[in-house]
Amino acid sequence: MSLALEEDLSPLGDLSAALLSRDLWARGAIVSRRAGVLAGAALASESYRQVDPRVQLSWVRGDGDMLESGTAVAFLEGPLTSVLTGERTALNFLCHLSGVASATRRFVEAARAVSGSVIIMDTRKTTPGLRSIEKAAVRAGGGRNHRGNLAEAVLIKDNHLVGITITEAVVRARDAWPGRMVEVECDRVDQVLEAVDAGATVVMLDNMDPATVALCVAQVDGRLAALRSGFQERAGRRSVLLEVSGGITLENVADYAATGVDIISVGAITHSAPALDIGLDLEDIVARSEMASQVPADGGIGDGEGR
Amino acid sequence: MSLALEEDLSPLGDLSAALLSRDLWARGAIVSRRAGVLAGAALASESYRQVDPRVQLSWVRGDGDMLESGTAVAFLEGPLTSVLTGERTALNFLCHLSGVASATRRFVEAARAVSGSVIIMDTRKTTPGLRSIEKAAVRAGGGRNHRGNLAEAVLIKDNHLVGITITEAVVRARDAWPGRMVEVECDRVDQVLEAVDAGATVVMLDNMDPATVALCVAQVDGRLAALRSGFQERAGRRSVLLEVSGGITLENVADYAATGVDIISVGAITHSAPALDIGLDLEDIVARSEMASQVPADGGIGDGEGR
Amino acid sequence: MSLALEEDLSPLGDLSAALLSRDLWARGAIVSRRAGVLAGAALASESYRQVDPRVQLSWVRGDGDMLESGTAVAFLEGPLTSVLTGERTALNFLCHLSGVASATRRFVEAARAVSGSVIIMDTRKTTPGLRSIEKAAVRAGGGRNHRGNLAEAVLIKDNHLVGITITEAVVRARDAWPGRMVEVECDRVDQVLEAVDAGATVVMLDNMDPATVALCVAQVDGRLAALRSGFQERAGRRSVLLEVSGGITLENVADYAATGVDIISVGAITHSAPALDIGLDLEDIVARSEMASQVPADGGIGDGEGR
Amino acid sequence: MSLALEEDLSPLGDLSAALLSRDLWARGAIVSRRAGVLAGAALASESYRQVDPRVQLSWVRGDGDMLESGTAVAFLEGPLTSVLTGERTALNFLCHLSGVASATRRFVEAARAVSGSVIIMDTRKTTPGLRSIEKAAVRAGGGRNHRGNLAEAVLIKDNHLVGITITEAVVRARDAWPGRMVEVECDRVDQVLEAVDAGATVVMLDNMDPATVALCVAQVDGRLAALRSGFQERAGRRSVLLEVSGGITLENVADYAATGVDIISVGAITHSAPALDIGLDLEDIVARSEMASQVPADGGIGDGEGR
Amino acid sequence: MSLALEEDLSPLGDLSAALLSRDLWARGAIVSRRAGVLAGAALASESYRQVDPRVQLSWVRGDGDMLESGTAVAFLEGPLTSVLTGERTALNFLCHLSGVASATRRFVEAARAVSGSVIIMDTRKTTPGLRSIEKAAVRAGGGRNHRGNLAEAVLIKDNHLVGITITEAVVRARDAWPGRMVEVECDRVDQVLEAVDAGATVVMLDNMDPATVALCVAQVDGRLAALRSGFQERAGRRSVLLEVSGGITLENVADYAATGVDIISVGAITHSAPALDIGLDLEDIVARSEMASQVPADGGIGDGEGR
Amino acid sequence: MSLALEEDLSPLGDLSAALLSRDLWARGAIVSRRAGVLAGAALASESYRQVDPRVQLSWVRGDGDMLESGTAVAFLEGPLTSVLTGERTALNFLCHLSGVASATRRFVEAARAVSGSVIIMDTRKTTPGLRSIEKAAVRAGGGRNHRGNLAEAVLIKDNHLVGITITEAVVRARDAWPGRMVEVECDRVDQVLEAVDAGATVVMLDNMDPATVALCVAQVDGRLAALRSGFQERAGRRSVLLEVSGGITLENVADYAATGVDIISVGAITHSAPALDIGLDLEDIVARSEMASQVPADGGIGDGEGR
Repeated sequence: MSLALEEDLSPLGDLSAALLSRDLWARGAIVSRRAGVLAGAALASESYRQVDPRVQLSWVRGDGDMLESGTAVAFLEGPLTSVLTGERTALNFLCHLSGVASATRRFVEAARAVSGSVIIMDTRKTTPGLRSIEKAAVRAGGGRNHRGNLAEAVLIKDNHLVGITITEAVVRARDAWPGRMVEVECDRVDQVLEAVDAGATVVMLDNMDPATVALCVAQVDGRLAALRSGFQERAGRRSVLLEVSGGITLENVADYAATGVDIISVGAITHSAPALDIGLDLEDIVARSEMASQVPADGGIGDGEGR
Repeated sequence: MSLALEEDLSPLGDLSAALLSRDLWARGAIVSRRAGVLAGAALASESYRQVDPRVQLSWVRGDGDMLESGTAVAFLEGPLTSVLTGERTALNFLCHLSGVASATRRFVEAARAVSGSVIIMDTRKTTPGLRSIEKAAVRAGGGRNHRGNLAEAVLIKDNHLVGITITEAVVRARDAWPGRMVEVECDRVDQVLEAVDAGATVVMLDNMDPATVALCVAQVDGRLAALRSGFQERAGRRSVLLEVSGGITLENVADYAATGVDIISVGAITHSAPALDIGLDLEDIVARSEMASQVPADGGIGDGEGR
Repeated sequence: MSLALEEDLSPLGDLSAALLSRDLWARGAIVSRRAGVLAGAALASESYRQVDPRVQLSWVRGDGDMLESGTAVAFLEGPLTSVLTGERTALNFLCHLSGVASATRRFVEAARAVSGSVIIMDTRKTTPGLRSIEKAAVRAGGGRNHRGNLAEAVLIKDNHLVGITITEAVVRARDAWPGRMVEVECDRVDQVLEAVDAGATVVMLDNMDPATVALCVAQVDGRLAALRSGFQERAGRRSVLLEVSGGITLENVADYAATGVDIISVGAITHSAPALDIGLDLEDIVARSEMASQVPADGGIGDGEGR
Repeated sequence: MSLALEEDLSPLGDLSAALLSRDLWARGAIVSRRAGVLAGAALASESYRQVDPRVQLSWVRGDGDMLESGTAVAFLEGPLTSVLTGERTALNFLCHLSGVASATRRFVEAARAVSGSVIIMDTRKTTPGLRSIEKAAVRAGGGRNHRGNLAEAVLIKDNHLVGITITEAVVRARDAWPGRMVEVECDRVDQVLEAVDAGATVVMLDNMDPATVALCVAQVDGRLAALRSGFQERAGRRSVLLEVSGGITLENVADYAATGVDIISVGAITHSAPALDIGLDLEDIVARSEMASQVPADGGIGDGEGR
Repeated sequence: MSLALEEDLSPLGDLSAALLSRDLWARGAIVSRRAGVLAGAALASESYRQVDPRVQLSWVRGDGDMLESGTAVAFLEGPLTSVLTGERTALNFLCHLSGVASATRRFVEAARAVSGSVIIMDTRKTTPGLRSIEKAAVRAGGGRNHRGNLAEAVLIKDNHLVGITITEAVVRARDAWPGRMVEVECDRVDQVLEAVDAGATVVMLDNMDPATVALCVAQVDGRLAALRSGFQERAGRRSVLLEVSGGITLENVADYAATGVDIISVGAITHSAPALDIGLDLEDIVARSEMASQVPADGGIGDGEGR
Repeated sequence: MSLALEEDLSPLGDLSAALLSRDLWARGAIVSRRAGVLAGAALASESYRQVDPRVQLSWVRGDGDMLESGTAVAFLEGPLTSVLTGERTALNFLCHLSGVASATRRFVEAARAVSGSVIIMDTRKTTPGLRSIEKAAVRAGGGRNHRGNLAEAVLIKDNHLVGITITEAVVRARDAWPGRMVEVECDRVDQVLEAVDAGATVVMLDNMDPATVALCVAQVDGRLAALRSGFQERAGRRSVLLEVSGGITLENVADYAATGVDIISVGAITHSAPALDIGLDLEDIVARSEMASQVPADGGIGDGEGR
């Protein structure tokens, strides 16, 4: 947050805004120029708060709301200089995160069209430094979050299986981290069944085509039925969650959803989501005389520090 | 940089890699899975250096190099656990920044096909917190950088013209910041000519269609010829730089380039560039006995701190 | 880490060490003065590295090793001034964390005497700012870690059950965070059974006496048998983990272990563990002439910055 | 402070509290479950202020107050989700620091029972990173602070006496740092007298038994009487302060106090003080409709940033 | 800012102010004891705000105002302890920055006595860490800012001309950074003319005596006239700015101003400006009973953390 | 340190140095252009180390050494681009701190000409953020340091004496902070004697003329003789240190030294010391081919991050 403002506001401040009188007051609206899903409202508010707490934002839409082209999402009022200085940083957050939420929504809608319960999840393929806010944007778009970092779950990939079996790896993981989610990435059906038998929380079907995924789903369901696991019926889901990952696009996501898997994870909703075009429209600029006894009159030095 | 590692490595470290023996050593290659332009090599190296300086990367391609699908850009060798722990952060930088460089290159090539001298520039519509590295990626892709923050140039937009003329604003900016770049954003031809006459360094033609841009170019060239400015001929460029901005796409960029403007600035090369798919292929994993007297043997506590 | 050094080393540095010649070189040993378990070796090394990388530590014991009174855990060599300046910070880490590991071990041994599989876990009642290193010390002492922060698991307590049932809360948690650990804190047997039926990952028996705990264990095992859950047999543990928490002491931990619960969590191993007394014995101090061309001779100013 | 919150609140926030409606408002009390001395009130307030400034704490007891088992120390009111999210961090500070204050008080009372003027002091054996707040807790418990870092006083130990005498070391320290406290650590009576003669501010009697300490006190008083130092009578104390350190326990502290020394320093009051058990009792949870125009409605993204 | 407070306020706080009752309230004035120019008002306010927001400052003079000896620049009111604790940091900013502003003003006045348009500029010879606030103080004193860092302009010195000509260097700089200021440092008249011809934005006449400077000015004006550059007349200044630098003192600045150069840059206004003597006069100290329910009563621990 | 580099090196790096080939290697010397005392060598080294560790500095003079005009203090060798990029920051430290050391030396020499034992001390009137390095520079110039922050000593001024006497204040300070330095600021002779009787460590004679100071010295010595304090003779100094402060200049410092006071404190040596002119002379620039496999070839992105 502060980092984003710092990169825009060098100590010299905003040379262009400094041309303006400090007595001008502006009113305007933040308006979406395309259809999509809003995300990042709190960060836009916080950006302006750090630039100048006198800039007031009133949100009429919130994170997760659907927007049409032309929808006003917030009204804003404050000193013109500060409104202009904070504009780009606030909008950069809003456009990027709403882009992530909108991309997520597109995948959710495509998948839900064929499966009422399938979950769209993100990955760790996020923009460096923005993971937590991108993951919140995924939630705003109707998705769910996979592990947020390398400690929130154990994820056993083929490179982790050096000299040990899937079964041994799962046992070792359960012993070291009782209760925590343990996931196994599988390339073949026999691996999938071994992971299910070993008691993995989630089994990831990696880079399989929809037909192979459907085969895995069928075999796992057969195996679970044989075990007559009580959890399956109670929780309304399999006692093992099946996830597909790799090569998912907006074009093929419905095919994967139709296989009956529980989770479809998609890196593109964070790493390749185009920004949603959201802009600031100023409607009104008026002079406003301010009392100035508490703050230095024309504080040359205050300029650089005032943020 | 550290921020990106911190969000992936909570104090508990990498639970999955902790399942592996510390004596395994891996060799592999970082490979582009699509055609594009490389950027971010130094950041990928630095990511690995912070995770574990024993992971060695040898780059065979550098920032700005064209990549084919399948091109190996670097070879890598080090402890398997560290190679896996650092993988995602290093690749997230590489994929995102190479995505920016590749998008830039596509615009540069489309524009240069019709104008040998036109410049593709970025904007301040960058991902929050990543401005400087995205701007470096733009340079790697053959683009040039517009101002990096609000202090590197004065940019006079319509909202800055409250009660003063363009001419007055330019004079005021020149007086306050002698020698610095002063740019004026114009919506109409008469504004363009006023900005040129006032001595702006750059005049931005905002959201105009190619025909209007061509008209502005012609009128400005006529005006400059009348002034017989010596600089124009000497520097090989106009003494005033003309820039178009707003609504530029890969489809219409050639039309704008053909108008004879000096600079075309494009927000999409930073805010909407899809990631370039670059991955890590491990080729070889071998056991390697290490001497361990200087560091604690099986340092439980060292795990979280070792980054 | 740096914080700990900063609070000891104000910019004026170490006034006492400054009385000494910089040419003196010391050798010594870090010795435990009591029996216990070692933890924090990597932090002690890192403390000295930040004070002066020329101080070399060679560890002969590692985290998790049992120590007798008089056991040398590391040998050390370096400039006398730096050895003295870094001593307190390095030892403060070592004594505190070995204290945590030793307390954990005492609980593990008392519990394992009556149950071969019961797990001693920590809580979030850790010293502010030291959670991750105290949790690593718990692992060094043979314990396991409960959630490290408020996001690693959902833990439903009575205050979270405002207007919703345990079943509804578990369903809501599973929907929002698929795959993640969901734990329910229960005060009564009927709550325990509801939590088990709802599909909680872990059920915490809060502040119950051993007899009530034993009753809960019996009822849950009966319920699980009725469900004939396949996981129970496969994973060698219940498909629901039962945890006791609250009021556990070294005196009563065996009674709880005997009830057949899976996990006993103990706040005292982190919040009330007395330090293990570990000290530094210097054996040898010799003069050593050093070449000094690269660094300023008797750098008054370097003193404060040299750390 | 922020560090303590950060380790508990990952960017995903508090998953459990997120299950609750944001319209619930809670009232409760922070209650001591054991007798002891309160410390850390300001840090508990600050913890809650950083989590959510709407949580209001009203303190009815302050740092240094004696608490009985069952004493309410503060009343609290605010949004239920924030009350729960901030609870552990606030209590961790309060329990740890009140533990330090309580341990200090126990030593002060034991020592004062035999000597009205003896001072209990802390050492630099504090928990890494918490020195300043632990030292404040010592003051709250009726103790006094020894030097806070390596620059606040010169402390000459045997390892500092390489090739120079105590007298030379004191003279050198006084010359380099005029006016500052100079302390000498002594193992033998003759060293004590040399340090007194050299003009040390404080002389530390290191690891001596009470009988030897009493001998030193007598000899120093004899020496000072011979010098007829005017300060001694005026200031009500010796012109040289005598301190004992090493091996002091609650059992033997009265024996040391009885020797007539000025200061008894005790590492255990900071490094081995068990936490004082202080908890939060919620009394009342009510729904409360809030106006929400200024902040984003159901701010998915705000969750992670809102702290 | 925080750095300046941190170096004055160790975690133990202000031992002297802690002797005073917290119920005392003080009123006073910040008064200049010498004639000069005020700068740093916002930083003084911010210093006090960070120490204690209850200390209120009312400024009657602002940055850039001329002060006589005895001029009150602000009135202040707040808790006596906080007024004393914050005094030195606030005054250190004010005295140092007003010293810079006053030195700048002396150069501006001396130069403007002979040339109405000449500009006094600063350099990058600023106090480490204080560049942005010293540059603001230069503006308060009537000066202008040269580049603030190594990226705001290209400055070609002789050491940059290894194997390339001035003309080539300027072309390369213009190509890499279109629109940005390009300056060339010249030692001889022929270099000056080459830089002008190459299209430099600013030409620096380095370490020349006034006579040589006057010669350069004449030759450049002749050259520009020959080019009949339209910009020269329009912008009221030369199309190339001429700057002198090196060896400028208050004694010779008028001689340089008389040569007709555009800019005179002076390192001494930042690196060697003596502080302006500004002090705090307390007028009134009264007891004031305060309500204290929200904050801990005599918060020992709060002392160190309260800043 | 990092702060100083950050303000000079924006993420775009050094645009001018980027014009140069990276294969050029430079050799040169850091040379004093005026007589003075060196200080800041370690900071200059550290500046270059952070810019590029390949730049090697060999110091032939150290902090505290006397310099003539033309004295080379260090030789330097490294990549030309890095030598130029780091030059200004390294020199800014060196010039400022050597200025402080040189000013200190001038006061020390003037005072010592009339009194062999008088001490020149600094004050807390230091440049914000630079206190510790300026205090080290004072030591390099032969001065001594007064308290470094508000916690290293108790300093009782008239504003601290609200409703209590000097005697009461000293007793309270001694009780709260046993062993620490307690200083009293006095305006009149009777106050001085009260402070001495109360047992102050240091008595400050504030803004008195030399004659009044001499009177105070005589009266204090008489009083001490009456007390026959043994310390006085032993330590070679008074048992109470007398300090003068306020209005000391290079012109009158000898007059004050002649009065027999122990300490003269001078704010001007830190707040108004002009920089010592020290510069970098490059002697040799040669091409040097480097192997480049480990680092990205022409790392566009590396530019901004490479520092």
